Amino acid sequence: MFQNFEVTARPEQGPPRLADLRGELDSADLDGFLIPRADAHQGEYVAPRDERLAWLTGFTGSAGFCVVLKGLAGVFVDGRYRTQVKAQVAAEFTPVPWPEIGLTDWLKEHLPEGGRIGYDPWLHAAGQIGKAQKGLKGSGIELVRCDNLVDRVWPDQPAPPMQPVKAHPLEFAGESADSKCARLAEGLRDKGHKAAVITLPDSIMWIANLRGADIARNPVAHGFAILHDDARVDLFMATAKLDEVREHLGDGVTQHEPGTFLDAVAALDGPVSVDLNTVPQIVADALGDTLRDGGDPCALPKARKNAAEIKGSAAAHLRDAAAVVELLAWLDDQTPGTVTETQVVTRLESERRKDNALRDISFDTIAGTGPNGAIMHYRVTEESDSLLQDGHMLVLDSGGQYLDGTTDITRTIAIGDVGDEEKACFTRVLRGMIAMSMLRWPAGLAGRDIECVARQPLWAAGQDFNHGVGHGVGAYLSVHEGPQRLARTSHVPFEPGMILSNEPGYYREGAFGIRVENLVVVEEAPSLPGGDAERAMLNWRTLTFVPIDRRLILPEMMAAEEIAWLNAYHRDVATKIGPWLGSAARMWLDAATRAL
Amino acid sequence: MFQNFEVTARPEQGPPRLADLRGELDSADLDGFLIPRADAHQGEYVAPRDERLAWLTGFTGSAGFCVVLKGLAGVFVDGRYRTQVKAQVAAEFTPVPWPEIGLTDWLKEHLPEGGRIGYDPWLHAAGQIGKAQKGLKGSGIELVRCDNLVDRVWPDQPAPPMQPVKAHPLEFAGESADSKCARLAEGLRDKGHKAAVITLPDSIMWIANLRGADIARNPVAHGFAILHDDARVDLFMATAKLDEVREHLGDGVTQHEPGTFLDAVAALDGPVSVDLNTVPQIVADALGDTLRDGGDPCALPKARKNAAEIKGSAAAHLRDAAAVVELLAWLDDQTPGTVTETQVVTRLESERRKDNALRDISFDTIAGTGPNGAIMHYRVTEESDSLLQDGHMLVLDSGGQYLDGTTDITRTIAIGDVGDEEKACFTRVLRGMIAMSMLRWPAGLAGRDIECVARQPLWAAGQDFNHGVGHGVGAYLSVHEGPQRLARTSHVPFEPGMILSNEPGYYREGAFGIRVENLVVVEEAPSLPGGDAERAMLNWRTLTFVPIDRRLILPEMMAAEEIAWLNAYHRDVATKIGPWLGSAARMWLDAATRAL
Repeated sequence: MFQNFEVTARPEQGPPRLADLRGELDSADLDGFLIPRADAHQGEYVAPRDERLAWLTGFTGSAGFCVVLKGLAGVFVDGRYRTQVKAQVAAEFTPVPWPEIGLTDWLKEHLPEGGRIGYDPWLHAAGQIGKAQKGLKGSGIELVRCDNLVDRVWPDQPAPPMQPVKAHPLEFAGESADSKCARLAEGLRDKGHKAAVITLPDSIMWIANLRGADIARNPVAHGFAILHDDARVDLFMATAKLDEVREHLGDGVTQHEPGTFLDAVAALDGPVSVDLNTVPQIVADALGDTLRDGGDPCALPKARKNAAEIKGSAAAHLRDAAAVVELLAWLDDQTPGTVTETQVVTRLESERRKDNALRDISFDTIAGTGPNGAIMHYRVTEESDSLLQDGHMLVLDSGGQYLDGTTDITRTIAIGDVGDEEKACFTRVLRGMIAMSMLRWPAGLAGRDIECVARQPLWAAGQDFNHGVGHGVGAYLSVHEGPQRLARTSHVPFEPGMILSNEPGYYREGAFGIRVENLVVVEEAPSLPGGDAERAMLNWRTLTFVPIDRRLILPEMMAAEEIAWLNAYHRDVATKIGPWLGSAARMWLDAATRAL
Repeated sequence: MFQNFEVTARPEQGPPRLADLRGELDSADLDGFLIPRADAHQGEYVAPRDERLAWLTGFTGSAGFCVVLKGLAGVFVDGRYRTQVKAQVAAEFTPVPWPEIGLTDWLKEHLPEGGRIGYDPWLHAAGQIGKAQKGLKGSGIELVRCDNLVDRVWPDQPAPPMQPVKAHPLEFAGESADSKCARLAEGLRDKGHKAAVITLPDSIMWIANLRGADIARNPVAHGFAILHDDARVDLFMATAKLDEVREHLGDGVTQHEPGTFLDAVAALDGPVSVDLNTVPQIVADALGDTLRDGGDPCALPKARKNAAEIKGSAAAHLRDAAAVVELLAWLDDQTPGTVTETQVVTRLESERRKDNALRDISFDTIAGTGPNGAIMHYRVTEESDSLLQDGHMLVLDSGGQYLDGTTDITRTIAIGDVGDEEKACFTRVLRGMIAMSMLRWPAGLAGRDIECVARQPLWAAGQDFNHGVGHGVGAYLSVHEGPQRLARTSHVPFEPGMILSNEPGYYREGAFGIRVENLVVVEEAPSLPGGDAERAMLNWRTLTFVPIDRRLILPEMMAAEEIAWLNAYHRDVATKIGPWLGSAARMWLDAATRAL
């Protein structure tokens, strides 16, 4: 079992640790210290060793940071975590609504001129430190590089992860590492860059066709890389991890111990491209004048999946759908009030594990029933575990990491008899999801240009939801992958091969939640008779094939073309998934995919 | 008659003038000179004196610029004007596709290091010069302030306009000039600014409740103003223009001769707010270190129309609609092939002039029949004038400047029997226009967040149009008014009281054009049962009431709610406009507004 239901953090753990940390401030001649959620790779998941924020404060959310001053410790969290933080941290910590209150404004309010705030330059991106320094200009408050004070007072801090790295076969990668390095090196030469420093693990995995197991849910290994403009790669990763891939790496990739990385960076002859939003401050400092904000050269090429990656993802989605359908068929057979959220999570994972290609789940399954469904990032624990009661809707958001692809699917499921108000809301969410699925749009547009399409049915009813419509997804890599997003803030144009989620939702606090999510891949839209000949257009192809709960739909609220889309989708689901199922699930699927 | 149909520019006028101008380059020790379309006020329309670009090159478009070098003269025009510029300029001028080719790249290609390019610092905004200087960095090419070389060689250049200024009555303005100055001064104090320099004529007209007649189509007078943080205004405008408003101006406004403006600016004690995108470089230079890029303080207050302005606009729209309906009723009575575009324009203007409150048309009427309808900014001339033929669609885009409001309306009209392909395209455009009209959206969003709603029906058919969905409109002021726009590039959130156009279109070059345009005003949307209580939402109220040509609609392509919207709209048109019409037009209206 990958997932567990432990309560991992307790409020009472914080105060003694905070006292220890404050003891270090004086010896370091500091007035405060920053503790981010991030590790040196700025990823969404971190290794146990890097769970400094949770260890110190008790707060386990996936974003946020703490600022420890001598008399005050602020825990900065965004809107998603306002309730959670209150339950997780002791009274010695003060929750701060962020980004409404920014770090620098808060520091200026609570520190006198001349205040010195320490930070670990491995854990903060150069762009972030630069922005903070700009905000502190004129205040006399100084940000000071130092070693990590949390690490000094964490006696049983886990060791860095050291899992073996595997080769990602060409069958699934679709392009050799040599070829990737050659074309990215050409891009460097075009920009006049001598090298690029790569600090994101999924970029390193992608360019070298590797997969790792250093952190949960993401098949990556920690390390750094330098891509030179002649296509050579220096890989800074512990020798012990690379035993199985020494031959695979070949002549193009030279391995070095991680401890030599900074010296190698400092020795580079520039200009050197980095992504300022993710490169650690200490790396930027080592580069000095040779630094150029050229971005991570892997970001866009990785996002544009090739034919083998799309084929693999599509195949993984079919097997994943079969696992989800088996779960849904079983669930439908249970009496309301007899099954708990953790039982659903456990059974779903066991269905997925029947597939030999499963390597992990792609994130901790969100299984929120009734009011728990309204908590967008709900993680069920032994304490919160609830029975699926008659009249509930269950929001079930889950995915798998398969050798050939990464999945992410949400279905909202009726438990017993659900009320008409819930059904009306569900139907609006579904209409938005269908409208986005059917969309065809001119090439060159980005998420911000089209995402409102999925919101219109809710808007018309005075409703909306407070998250983006979708995110990029990797090919057996991160389930949240940039740079493109289907969100109001994203200006990265969509290109053929990009995989995204399409997941509108609706949340009524204390009552219920709804989300419907398919993964989709961007394709060139076929030309249409009467269409503008000079205008290239794009559309989505759906990858996810799992029934959408017909019992929650009010057909009279839907347009004819929306019903036609759903019926065609369900026909595809029956055809594609039926053959993978046991006989009970197949019978269930036949009923679940009947035309509306 | 406000509009004329003269061919105002001839290609052959350019070469001798170009030669004269080049003669001045040597004496000024320059390698080139910039000739923008703009005047010192960066408006869309300029006075005859400021038509330097058209005088020199022959090009009469509303945007573009010319760079005259010793051996090359580039005329930079955007996508709208690529065809027009070829017809209007002589071979001595080289059309340059802009912004695909930027000014600085072009200069670097055609000038050696050390090249000196002159410009008139009144005619270029500081932001524009700053951007150009940044682009030229390292090239050794220098931008040099100088007097206007075109003015030196233009013997019969018209004098600056000197039309009398009138008071804009409180009944229509809805707020006294004193009150406006007081609240804007408070805004300056909040930002710590001692003053704001205002160089946009419509801002000056708005803050002082004045209207002028210095340029065609826009009821503004040329001048400059300084708003101080104690609410005093210094107005730099020729005494001769202000005879009729001396009492109206009162104690708060002190008049000065325009020649004293720069000295007054230089004497200001800072910080001083300007809009870098529009303030002339010479004004920015005079401010020096006191300059702050705080924007034009009138921009947003002017855009948020008050109750009196909305009432006035709505009233003007009813009378304007009656004029348009009289024209449409007459037109429908004519045999195809017997009426020309100029006859339509002339008759429409005469219908509008029956209203005593009409002061001007709000722009030159676009009346493009058949293939001419595909030219987005078509201005009919004696040479281009065409007969409205059987099977044509006529795009008729026009508006009036009334004492109580500004109108802007487009209808596409069937001439005889129109083909099904044209009708299908028209129906898509109309569906987009209706979808936008029906939209309700969360407060805080801007044009870029919602404009795709009006494009979706076209996108689904592989079609689109190359202009924004809409623009802001003034209250008896500019028909194109910022800062908000219903466009992919606009990030200014919509607020109650803003008036915009909603005008999707479709254009098939050489064949036909379609556009349907209503003006709409932003309002707070009423709350709905079941809607999110904490979520403020906005919607549009329509101001324009003129029938949409039922003969061009294919009802089987429309959703039931779209047809319901149109039928309700037509009922409103009949009720509101019927009473204003003669008996023939009223009979026509009854038929034109029948339910679909």
